[in-house]
Amino acid sequence: MAVLTNIRSDRVKTVRALSRRSMRERTGLFLAEGPQSVREAVTHRPGTVRDLYVTQEAATRHTEILAAAREAALTVHRCSDEVLASMCDTDAPQGLLAVCRVVATSLAQVLAGRPRLLIVLSQVRDPGNAGTVLRGADAFGADAVIVTASSVDIHAPKVVRSTAGSMFHVPVVTGMAIEDVLRHLREARIRTLAADGAGTTTLTEVDLAGPHAWVMGNEAWGLPEPVREECDEVVRVPIHGLAESLNLAMAATVCLYESSRHR
Amino acid sequence: MAVLTNIRSDRVKTVRALSRRSMRERTGLFLAEGPQSVREAVTHRPGTVRDLYVTQEAATRHTEILAAAREAALTVHRCSDEVLASMCDTDAPQGLLAVCRVVATSLAQVLAGRPRLLIVLSQVRDPGNAGTVLRGADAFGADAVIVTASSVDIHAPKVVRSTAGSMFHVPVVTGMAIEDVLRHLREARIRTLAADGAGTTTLTEVDLAGPHAWVMGNEAWGLPEPVREECDEVVRVPIHGLAESLNLAMAATVCLYESSRHR
Repeated sequence: MAVLTNIRSDRVKTVRALSRRSMRERTGLFLAEGPQSVREAVTHRPGTVRDLYVTQEAATRHTEILAAAREAALTVHRCSDEVLASMCDTDAPQGLLAVCRVVATSLAQVLAGRPRLLIVLSQVRDPGNAGTVLRGADAFGADAVIVTASSVDIHAPKVVRSTAGSMFHVPVVTGMAIEDVLRHLREARIRTLAADGAGTTTLTEVDLAGPHAWVMGNEAWGLPEPVREECDEVVRVPIHGLAESLNLAMAATVCLYESSRHR
Repeated sequence: MAVLTNIRSDRVKTVRALSRRSMRERTGLFLAEGPQSVREAVTHRPGTVRDLYVTQEAATRHTEILAAAREAALTVHRCSDEVLASMCDTDAPQGLLAVCRVVATSLAQVLAGRPRLLIVLSQVRDPGNAGTVLRGADAFGADAVIVTASSVDIHAPKVVRSTAGSMFHVPVVTGMAIEDVLRHLREARIRTLAADGAGTTTLTEVDLAGPHAWVMGNEAWGLPEPVREECDEVVRVPIHGLAESLNLAMAATVCLYESSRHR
């Protein structure tokens, strides 16, 4: 098998360009870097993998990923360490990179599945927070994550990395305005729960028996007043100590955990 | 008031050196950077603040911090933006820096207070994780955080930053071996709960009524078998989805939340 060694080739440049949002939007492709993400992509969503790049060392170390890729008839390219490093956004891709197709899931599709638990991110800007929320959504059995138009790009390499593979487990809806999301959820009789430190209901007392969606706002300024008012309830995590507030990822994790406890 | 402007002065070098663990250990001093950390240090632990450094702009913006510092008779140094930036570990200290004394809290002191909820970090290496756990311990009313000798330095600038001020709310015990910590907790009749994905008891069924301590292991390899065996129970957070596991900070947050719910 030919080994890609030219870091100045058009292929390398094209893949590397996917670190940029504009190029991801133009091509509908994104990067999954490292064994964890690549394993989950190849195992759970092989149909989304367009190309798999692997170094000699990684191919020897991760034989089960390569076997799964062969079984799914994926296109595997061998490449030098330098080529792999050039194509990646991270410093330590550990020899594995998948170029994946963005799967566009619509809110209508999600709602058709009669979801019990959803989480909405509105104006969330930090890649690590968004990734951690996706991981929590996966762990606690959320049916989908809805990321509004004004949030971080969920397909940015940093977000994909911090989902630790959960990106390939949980459907993600993107590109909608928060007002439209809330209207559709209301029409589908899914209760909307704004998570906000200013909430009057606490997480330990809110009714989580029926279908509901957590709505999380920006890391610094939370949810704007009009959005909170559009939600059915504003819920706060009860805080005992002097902490100003939990960060977004912690609050989302606790809310999703509490929802899963009520299943 | 004289303004410090010389970034090559001995004072600037000495403060900047506190970004290094060796210098923190030699001097017993550490850095609190930015308005959030400095506010909590000045407000809740003024006795630990040895020097406060502030730029002209920050002094104008954060008058309440300066007022609290004056009331506590703290030594406040005005300095140029360049001097402040030179002394700090972070790129954006927002004009405020406190040099604080490490307060050594012993486990004996903590146990004398008849604690109800503790959390132990054993071989936790990531500054962000350690800081987030401290924040969660504060939010959910833990009486202290115990960080074993082989963990990240809890006074590293990155840890202090990620505690978002909680560093100055919750007592922290450092420097002990995990075996000694577990022995002392057992003698004090505090149940030790190892948080581990391999646990047989789930978080939703474990008895959290009495005094207990969560024991969290390393990000990658968890708790070694002998440590798990020394604990009274091994508890896992029930996972619904395909997520391999929650990350350390998420697991700790959920465990502490569940403990606080049982108060």
